[in-house]
Amino acid sequence: MEKPLKTRKYTITILPQGDTLEAEDGDNLFRFLVRHGYIIASACGGMGTCGKCHVLIHGKLMPPTESERVYLSQTELDQGWRLACQQRTDRHMILEIPQINETTQAKELLAHELHVALKPGVEKIYLHLPLPGKADQRPDTVRFQEGLGVDDLTFPLPLLRKVPHLLRESEFELTLTNEGSKVLDLETGNTSQSLYGLAIDIGTTTLAGYLLSLSTGQELAVRSQMNPQKSFGADVISRIKRVHDQGEAGLKELHEAVVSGINTLIRQLCGAAKINADHIYKITVAGNPTMLHLFTAVDPSQIDHSPYIPVLRDGLVLSAEELRLEASPRAQVYVLPAVSGYVGGDIMAGVLFTGLHQSDKLSLFVDIGTNAEIVVGNREKMLTCSTPAGPAFEGAAIKYGMNAIPGAISHISLNNGSEPELEVIGGGIPQGICGSGLIDLVAELRKVGLINKRGNLLHQAGLPYIERVTLGERGQPQFLVTNADRPIYLTQQDIRELQLAKGAVQSGVEVILREWGAAPEDIDVVYLAGAFGSYIRRESVLRLGMLPPFPLEKIKVMGNAAGQGAKLCLLNTEKSIDIQELVQQIEYFELSYYKTFSDVFVQSMYFPEV
Amino acid sequence: MEKPLKTRKYTITILPQGDTLEAEDGDNLFRFLVRHGYIIASACGGMGTCGKCHVLIHGKLMPPTESERVYLSQTELDQGWRLACQQRTDRHMILEIPQINETTQAKELLAHELHVALKPGVEKIYLHLPLPGKADQRPDTVRFQEGLGVDDLTFPLPLLRKVPHLLRESEFELTLTNEGSKVLDLETGNTSQSLYGLAIDIGTTTLAGYLLSLSTGQELAVRSQMNPQKSFGADVISRIKRVHDQGEAGLKELHEAVVSGINTLIRQLCGAAKINADHIYKITVAGNPTMLHLFTAVDPSQIDHSPYIPVLRDGLVLSAEELRLEASPRAQVYVLPAVSGYVGGDIMAGVLFTGLHQSDKLSLFVDIGTNAEIVVGNREKMLTCSTPAGPAFEGAAIKYGMNAIPGAISHISLNNGSEPELEVIGGGIPQGICGSGLIDLVAELRKVGLINKRGNLLHQAGLPYIERVTLGERGQPQFLVTNADRPIYLTQQDIRELQLAKGAVQSGVEVILREWGAAPEDIDVVYLAGAFGSYIRRESVLRLGMLPPFPLEKIKVMGNAAGQGAKLCLLNTEKSIDIQELVQQIEYFELSYYKTFSDVFVQSMYFPEV
Repeated sequence: MEKPLKTRKYTITILPQGDTLEAEDGDNLFRFLVRHGYIIASACGGMGTCGKCHVLIHGKLMPPTESERVYLSQTELDQGWRLACQQRTDRHMILEIPQINETTQAKELLAHELHVALKPGVEKIYLHLPLPGKADQRPDTVRFQEGLGVDDLTFPLPLLRKVPHLLRESEFELTLTNEGSKVLDLETGNTSQSLYGLAIDIGTTTLAGYLLSLSTGQELAVRSQMNPQKSFGADVISRIKRVHDQGEAGLKELHEAVVSGINTLIRQLCGAAKINADHIYKITVAGNPTMLHLFTAVDPSQIDHSPYIPVLRDGLVLSAEELRLEASPRAQVYVLPAVSGYVGGDIMAGVLFTGLHQSDKLSLFVDIGTNAEIVVGNREKMLTCSTPAGPAFEGAAIKYGMNAIPGAISHISLNNGSEPELEVIGGGIPQGICGSGLIDLVAELRKVGLINKRGNLLHQAGLPYIERVTLGERGQPQFLVTNADRPIYLTQQDIRELQLAKGAVQSGVEVILREWGAAPEDIDVVYLAGAFGSYIRRESVLRLGMLPPFPLEKIKVMGNAAGQGAKLCLLNTEKSIDIQELVQQIEYFELSYYKTFSDVFVQSMYFPEV
Repeated sequence: MEKPLKTRKYTITILPQGDTLEAEDGDNLFRFLVRHGYIIASACGGMGTCGKCHVLIHGKLMPPTESERVYLSQTELDQGWRLACQQRTDRHMILEIPQINETTQAKELLAHELHVALKPGVEKIYLHLPLPGKADQRPDTVRFQEGLGVDDLTFPLPLLRKVPHLLRESEFELTLTNEGSKVLDLETGNTSQSLYGLAIDIGTTTLAGYLLSLSTGQELAVRSQMNPQKSFGADVISRIKRVHDQGEAGLKELHEAVVSGINTLIRQLCGAAKINADHIYKITVAGNPTMLHLFTAVDPSQIDHSPYIPVLRDGLVLSAEELRLEASPRAQVYVLPAVSGYVGGDIMAGVLFTGLHQSDKLSLFVDIGTNAEIVVGNREKMLTCSTPAGPAFEGAAIKYGMNAIPGAISHISLNNGSEPELEVIGGGIPQGICGSGLIDLVAELRKVGLINKRGNLLHQAGLPYIERVTLGERGQPQFLVTNADRPIYLTQQDIRELQLAKGAVQSGVEVILREWGAAPEDIDVVYLAGAFGSYIRRESVLRLGMLPPFPLEKIKVMGNAAGQGAKLCLLNTEKSIDIQELVQQIEYFELSYYKTFSDVFVQSMYFPEV
């Protein structure tokens, strides 16, 4: 695996595509192909222990390695079959890669699932450096530079101080991790396979983390956990208020809460994947603007009042050390760029993932959470806005509401007066209703006529399911969803909360389409992202009138688009450039300054005719 | 002084030279001219309070400012005379700069003395930023970028965290210090004149510091002090031995000693110039390789034994903060590059200062200290070596020796048997003999015949000054130099020490000239630098045979060439690039591996015939 000098270059021709690529002398063929986005079977990530990465080499062949003898028959070897992971790019080569079923590989080779070439910007190189002697008095740092064949190599001071000892301890055989000319790590021996990255989405409610191998592009583990800041307030406004009230100390408290939450996530991810967190060298972070301000401990106080001014816009490159993240101290932490105080790096990551910004066709992107952010546009012109939807979609402020976690009712159907059909996340006994369940339930009640246009839960004999409607607190009607473990009701107040939330989204979409100059029928595709994950049912969304009456097939439910976008930036540095350009192209529209917004909003609280 | 947007460009034509320069809109004309290397009279550094920087402007004139009315007559104003510091480059201009006597300006405008354009790489800009409002929702960081007219501006995290508060405290009027796209400081109000830099030469014995204004190029203060590491050993070998013996703790001790010495120097310099050390934004550091390793706390242990391997070669860019220097935390600390374990950034700085590396003619550069470093070459080919001269030239290991500080005898003449004529640094009563005095004394004794070719101090009746020769310790002869305050003797042992020292230099020069393929008569100029400062007397050097018999006028005594070179790098970033290229061009020759070196050395201990 050593790669002492980058000098000669060879042409690698791939059949049947006929692509020609330029390879540096001595690269590992498997990793070379993966880096260039080819789908190649593998279960061991290039360690020579699964025998799946076979390729057919035309022309000059090297004698088979031990591993190739194990996994390939003599006939196959004679035909020219070899394992890509056992081959070096040390000559011009023509080779065929067997076509494999892409979906079966999707879990293993995430880079391909995301349709992105693996160019994370960080790399590891195992070096055998020549020993010093009377005829070779090169200084230690020059020995590294010349060993790598580069003119410029910058060692951060703490690493520079380790150079003489590590070189001599390892007898001049060590692994160097670098990002361009900057050295990130030095380790004795060969650790070149241990190159990992982390994509993080800091949600107001939930932190999501994705651990990926940056040498194969594989996703190794996914975990999510509650944002510990929740104990300081459910939404961004209450967290900013905390900073207002407590000043420096409040900011520090919220900053440390999210950092400690991410560190917990890192420990879980590394435990699951059985890797050392010191081998995480790159981290990309998406989140709404307030979350990214708090993550970097930059005061977000100006965001919550007009004219809503954030400090940050462009992406930041920081180090794990200065943020006290438990990764390699010099891991590059890339904080994704935002557009405004309410349209953040999470939305930009989502848009990046959909490719809206590169499409000729007109798309609508809606991310639904405590705030709903809306983007409409194409490669020519993009407009974005944000609207406060309130906590209903997150299951908060709903009597039996909860987050979309195991035990939550995520889907409900009401058919012909029979018992409501429930889907519960993780199966088991229902504990409450999450956002998607709430949307389904209100949509279904509207369908059967138990809720009217104005959102009143009707309490009249003769209506279907009327036996489930009782009078609850303050004489307000309520609907019994289930009585499996304990009774779970939908209250009149819950319906009002949902009306506020859906009205915010609906009016935002209406105004921004008008502002862009587009009618709903001009929209080619609608991306629905957000806290719901993939639980949301498009039919119910349309039945509530939250979106204009788009044909069902135009609506794509994205799940955590922000996390996917953060992964793209993790796997390929060019995506970080794309997202930065996107931020500079997109135009922010301040909904609250729109003259007739409140009229539009009030109208949007009604439900459409059934 | 504000400079809100860098947009339009104008042509500035300078008469009588006829130079045309391109200026950005709104630059200060005085600073613009200084930056471009023009010599322009000034005593106030462009504050409008000395009236010296008058220039004659042809064409369109602005109404005179108050300051111009004070310092210029109505006739002068009518003729087109204006003060450069009161003018902006806000239109195409043709102007004449009065010729001034360069030497009278030398002290004031050091940049010109060094014949270098003022381009320190760091700058300060006073900004009036527009206030946010409903029609201007730009994020704080974008406001800065657009105010400066740049696409990219990187705030280090601690500064980023101050942005929202500083902006609002200052009502959006503040001074930004930057190095390219990197922000180094942010201050409320206008501090654009407070931009300072420091050049440091870390000698084994002495630390020298130079404080310069980076907005005018003026040298504001010079100070030197003992290197506090001296208490751990007089020479580099004993300091490296300390690291060998004490390990990590020894390295830390030596590192902290030199840092604390530099911090003392900084306090003295800032006190003398009455400036705030937080306004020092750039520091350049020269020194021998061991000193630069210890300064950066990088283990120099491999330097003191064959094959003499240092860790460092190329220049380093560090921050004042990570080295705990008492300057602006983000001040850029540029550690000058070295060639080998014994030819360091001090020598490279000296060579840079002489221009040897850019000359067609062949030059010899000799820096004399505890080690003597020798460079021979021209723009085509350069060779360097180092030879251990021992401590005699520094006044150490000499019975009445001392450093070249007040009280040291720096020059001695013996004429016709009269009382020796002494020159004492700082006048006053002689306390001992420094290196240049020792060289003079031995040369003079050799001239009068009291020392023979082999270096024996003769004790024979009839010789001149024989009455001053007595027998000292162990019956060895000694020469009474003076008895002013207390008797000061030169001992036989002192002469032996000098012979070792001069022999090392002499043999080094001989071998390296041979190796380069040059004879002494091929050398066009000899630069003599080092601890002697400007005290050394060329005649005495030649009389001892330390250098080949060059004509006197070919020998240039340089003083602290390293400090001058460090100042060049401080004032102009291109010089840092030059010095880095120099290091890569120059070839190191390991004298100790030269087969017949010890024979040459032994021969070199003799003195030439008188």
